Amino acid sequence: MTDRLAAQFAFLNEADKLKQVLRATTLVDASRRENSGEHSWHLALYAMVLADQAGPDVRIDRVIRMLILHDLVEIDVGDVPIHSANGLAHASADTAKAESRAADRIFGLLPPDLGAELRALWEEFEAAATPDAVFAKALDRVQPVMHNIESGGGTWITYNVTADQLESRVGVKIARGAPALREWVRMQTRAFFST
Amino acid sequence: MTDRLAAQFAFLNEADKLKQVLRATTLVDASRRENSGEHSWHLALYAMVLADQAGPDVRIDRVIRMLILHDLVEIDVGDVPIHSANGLAHASADTAKAESRAADRIFGLLPPDLGAELRALWEEFEAAATPDAVFAKALDRVQPVMHNIESGGGTWITYNVTADQLESRVGVKIARGAPALREWVRMQTRAFFST
Repeated sequence: MTDRLAAQFAFLNEADKLKQVLRATTLVDASRRENSGEHSWHLALYAMVLADQAGPDVRIDRVIRMLILHDLVEIDVGDVPIHSANGLAHASADTAKAESRAADRIFGLLPPDLGAELRALWEEFEAAATPDAVFAKALDRVQPVMHNIESGGGTWITYNVTADQLESRVGVKIARGAPALREWVRMQTRAFFST
Repeated sequence: MTDRLAAQFAFLNEADKLKQVLRATTLVDASRRENSGEHSWHLALYAMVLADQAGPDVRIDRVIRMLILHDLVEIDVGDVPIHSANGLAHASADTAKAESRAADRIFGLLPPDLGAELRALWEEFEAAATPDAVFAKALDRVQPVMHNIESGGGTWITYNVTADQLESRVGVKIARGAPALREWVRMQTRAFFST
């Protein structure tokens, strides 16, 4: 029991470092960059509040768990912004390999049964093939859009993003998991890409 | 649909402010104070990882949802540290009244059905009368203890906390929801209160 608890707390203390990983996106009021810990909390809240946007085969409680875990690998790898490196870095093979090594280390801190369970949930999110993962990914794309809208453009300005790039990097993923949200995003973002 | 989404996003954008509410407790490495948004994320992860400490009547997915919501009222009221004002401020009638007004305003941003559902979950947490809420409260007490241990004493030093005060303000609540965790905490904290 004591060894098991020691492993559980070693993981929970290590996870604390996610609060120091900075994202490209700022808070809604643009006062500072968001960190990946508070971002993960916000996304879990997104899942609770936007559950009515999910298809009937989506289990929101699994989505919430995925979103709580989804960025832990950034403790080792850092955040790779969607729009950085002309949109090519985020889903590159190099990033995937580094994240897999990070998952080995971080989930490996847990007791083996629990580490395997949490890692499987993270891999399901990454693979984006199940309804739960597709909806979780859609929310992960919607939230920075809302922050960019509120803060006057945010990372779209930083990275010179065009309407077509927003569509291919963000819109398509939102559409897969939450079609009505994608229409909403299109309406709300129109003004930023009118030129 | 559009009005409903507008209300959902108004709430989600307002919730962003929780990332700017600072707690007395620091991060594990003591580099800065923790904010209540990232704290809520960390607690949701605590619930996932320490689920085996919950009694058989606890539904962990409800605990996770409670923990995601539990500090939202701090957007208006701020964090009231457990050990501040000689331990008297945290559960005072004034604090409870202010938090209830904050809940009116913040959950009131949501569509009425959803606002009522989330507020009920927050009130259940506050009342600490159901197994889910009692376990959630226990985790909310354990996490700052772990941070104080890692950072060399933390708020126990700030507020001159004695072993008896730690027991009455923290130990008792952990014991109610997670008895084995309380024994663990007693073992780990002994060295800090030996004089």
